[in-house]
Amino acid sequence: MFSCVGYAATAADASLGPIALDRRDPGPEDVQIDIMYCGVCHSDLHQARNEWHNTIFPCVPGHEIVGRVTRVGPSVTRFRAGELVGVGCMVDSCRECSSCRAGFEQYCEVGFVGTYNGEDRQGRGITFGGYSRAIVVDQAFVLKVPEKLDPAAVAPLLCAGITTYSPLRHWKVGPGQRVGIVGLGGLGHMGVKFARAFGAEVVLFTTSASKVADGLRLGAHEVVLSKDPEAMAKERGRFDFILDAVAADHDINAYLDLLRRDGTLVQVGAPENPLPVSVFSLLMKRRNFSGSLIGGIPETQEMLDFCGEHGITADIEMIRMDEIETAYARMLRSDVKYRFVIDMATMPETA
Amino acid sequence: MFSCVGYAATAADASLGPIALDRRDPGPEDVQIDIMYCGVCHSDLHQARNEWHNTIFPCVPGHEIVGRVTRVGPSVTRFRAGELVGVGCMVDSCRECSSCRAGFEQYCEVGFVGTYNGEDRQGRGITFGGYSRAIVVDQAFVLKVPEKLDPAAVAPLLCAGITTYSPLRHWKVGPGQRVGIVGLGGLGHMGVKFARAFGAEVVLFTTSASKVADGLRLGAHEVVLSKDPEAMAKERGRFDFILDAVAADHDINAYLDLLRRDGTLVQVGAPENPLPVSVFSLLMKRRNFSGSLIGGIPETQEMLDFCGEHGITADIEMIRMDEIETAYARMLRSDVKYRFVIDMATMPETA
Repeated sequence: MFSCVGYAATAADASLGPIALDRRDPGPEDVQIDIMYCGVCHSDLHQARNEWHNTIFPCVPGHEIVGRVTRVGPSVTRFRAGELVGVGCMVDSCRECSSCRAGFEQYCEVGFVGTYNGEDRQGRGITFGGYSRAIVVDQAFVLKVPEKLDPAAVAPLLCAGITTYSPLRHWKVGPGQRVGIVGLGGLGHMGVKFARAFGAEVVLFTTSASKVADGLRLGAHEVVLSKDPEAMAKERGRFDFILDAVAADHDINAYLDLLRRDGTLVQVGAPENPLPVSVFSLLMKRRNFSGSLIGGIPETQEMLDFCGEHGITADIEMIRMDEIETAYARMLRSDVKYRFVIDMATMPETA
Repeated sequence: MFSCVGYAATAADASLGPIALDRRDPGPEDVQIDIMYCGVCHSDLHQARNEWHNTIFPCVPGHEIVGRVTRVGPSVTRFRAGELVGVGCMVDSCRECSSCRAGFEQYCEVGFVGTYNGEDRQGRGITFGGYSRAIVVDQAFVLKVPEKLDPAAVAPLLCAGITTYSPLRHWKVGPGQRVGIVGLGGLGHMGVKFARAFGAEVVLFTTSASKVADGLRLGAHEVVLSKDPEAMAKERGRFDFILDAVAADHDINAYLDLLRRDGTLVQVGAPENPLPVSVFSLLMKRRNFSGSLIGGIPETQEMLDFCGEHGITADIEMIRMDEIETAYARMLRSDVKYRFVIDMATMPETA
C-alpha cells in the first residue's frame, strides 16, 4: 500500500476536497501510473452528487486518465516505467463472458468494474478514480497513448472519444454517407471530428446559433439549428446515420424522421426519462433506434492509435484541481469548449 | 370499363354493404383477376371506420387477395389467363426511386399506391380493394401463387405473411438464434411459423394462457406468459431477435430487456401512440429498436415460393361476405384463429 492524495466528494451535498487515499502496491499484473491529466466527464458530477442514487462515499471521480507508468508488476509484459498510458471508464471485467471474450468489456455480462465507485472483483474495496496523483490498474485495462499527441488533450478520448468512435465504427460510417451529430458538447465535438476523419459528410445539429462557427471549425460540413423547423424539414429522410449525444429529454422523433430507409440513430447521451418513440417513423423506412456505451479495450486502443495517426485530440480547457466545483457549475450551463481537463500537477501535496 | 360488385363502407359509421364498382379494362400492362378469396386485415377495419382520418368513401377494403387471371393486356408477359395469382397491399409505386429500384416498393420515396384508398398514379381515381368480385392490377404488382397450397389460406400471406417474413429475412434470423414473437394474432402466428421454418429457436410471448397450446402447435418451442414477471425475468438478455406484432400500447422496455448484446427488436404492429423507450436499455447492450413495413414485391414472391416449398399457409376462419361486420366485431376482441378470409363466391351477384 502507498498513500496518495485524491480529490473526493464525501457527501452528495459537499464540495470536493483533498483526501488521503490508500492505493495498493502493484500486484503481478498491475501498472502503477502517475496521473498527469484527468478529463472531467458529466458522469463525474452525477456520481459526486449521488444523482444515480448509488454513490459510495468518499467518491473520487475521474475516468479520463493520462499519465506515465512508474512501476509495473513482475508479470506485466506490455508496459514499462516511463511509458505514456491511459485509463478510461473500466479497470476490470469478468473476462470470461462472450462479451469480454469478444473485446466488448463494456457489455460484460457480469458488469464491468468502473474506474471509480466500482466494486473491486478481488475484494479490495471500492475503486477511486483519476482525480488523484496516482492509480494502480491491471495491465489488461491500460492503454498505450501515442507520444506525439498533447497528453492533456488525449485525456477526454478515454471516455468522450471512445463513446463516439465506437458506434461510428460499429455501424461502419464512412465515405458516401451523410451523418448527423446531435449536440456539440464533450461527446458531440468528438463525434464531429471522428465522422469527418472517417470520410463522411458531416452535419452538426445544435440548438445554439453561437456554436455554428465552432461546428464548422471542428469539421462539420454543415450546421443545422435544430430549433428551426424549416431547416429541419429540409433534412428529412437524408441521413444514413445519426449520433445523438444529447443527455437531456428531447424530441427523438424529429431526428428519426431525418433518417433514410435503413438508417440508424444511435443514442450515446443517456437521458434519464424514457424517450417517446413514434413507431410509425420506424416502420415507414425500416429505421433503427439504437444505443451504444463507451467502447471495449481493443477498440479504445485502436482509437488512440487512429488519433495518433490523424492528429486527433479533444478541444479542452485546462483547470486546476481546486477549480473543480467551478468547472462543474460551468458544465451544468454547457459552458465549456469542449472538455475540462484537470492538470494533476495542481493537486495538493498532502490532504 | 366493366362493372363489378364490391363491398364498401360508405361512411365511417355505416355497415359495409354491396356496391357497384367500375373497374378499368386491362391496359397493356394489366392483369384482370377474378377474386376467389380475400383476407381480412385489421387495417381494413381502421380504414373503413376512418380511424386514420384519411379514408375516402366509398371505401372497398381488402389487400390479401387470391384469385385467377381472366384477362391480360397485350404487353403482359409474366401471366396468362387461368393462372393462380395474388395481390397484396400495393398496386403501384414510383418505380424510379432508390427504394423501388432496390425492390423495396413499400418504402417508395414518393409513396406506394395502396390496394385500396390509394390514389392512382395515372389519375384514374381512388383504388378499390379485394372485397370485390374482380380487380385489375399492373403485372408488376401481381404475384404468382403456388398451385399446391390452399388458395384461401394463402390470402393472408399477402399482408400478414410478408409483414413477418420480411423482417425475419432482413435481420437474417436462422439456426442458432433464439427468437421471440410477441403476440399471437394474424401477424404473430405467421411470425411463429416463419421463424420456426428458418431454423430458429422460437419463443412465443402472449398475455393469454388460452393461447399456449396453440403457440406450441404452430411451431413455438416455448410459450411465455408475458404477464408473469418471474417468467419474463428468466428470459432477460437471452434473445437475438424479437418480432413484436402488438399494435396496442404496451411496455416495450420489458421486451428490449430480453435482448442480448446487439440484439434487435422489430415492431411490425403499429401502436398509435409513441412508445416510451428506456435509453439505458438500448445503451447497456447496444440493443436496436426497429420497425418494418410489409415487404417488397420481389421478396413477396420469394415468400410465396418459400411457402409453396415448405407447405406454409395461414390458419384461417372462412366467412361469407355478409358476415364481415361480425368478423370485424370478433377481430376487435382478438377472437379469430388467426385470420378471417372472405369466400368471394358469397359476394352478391348485383349491388
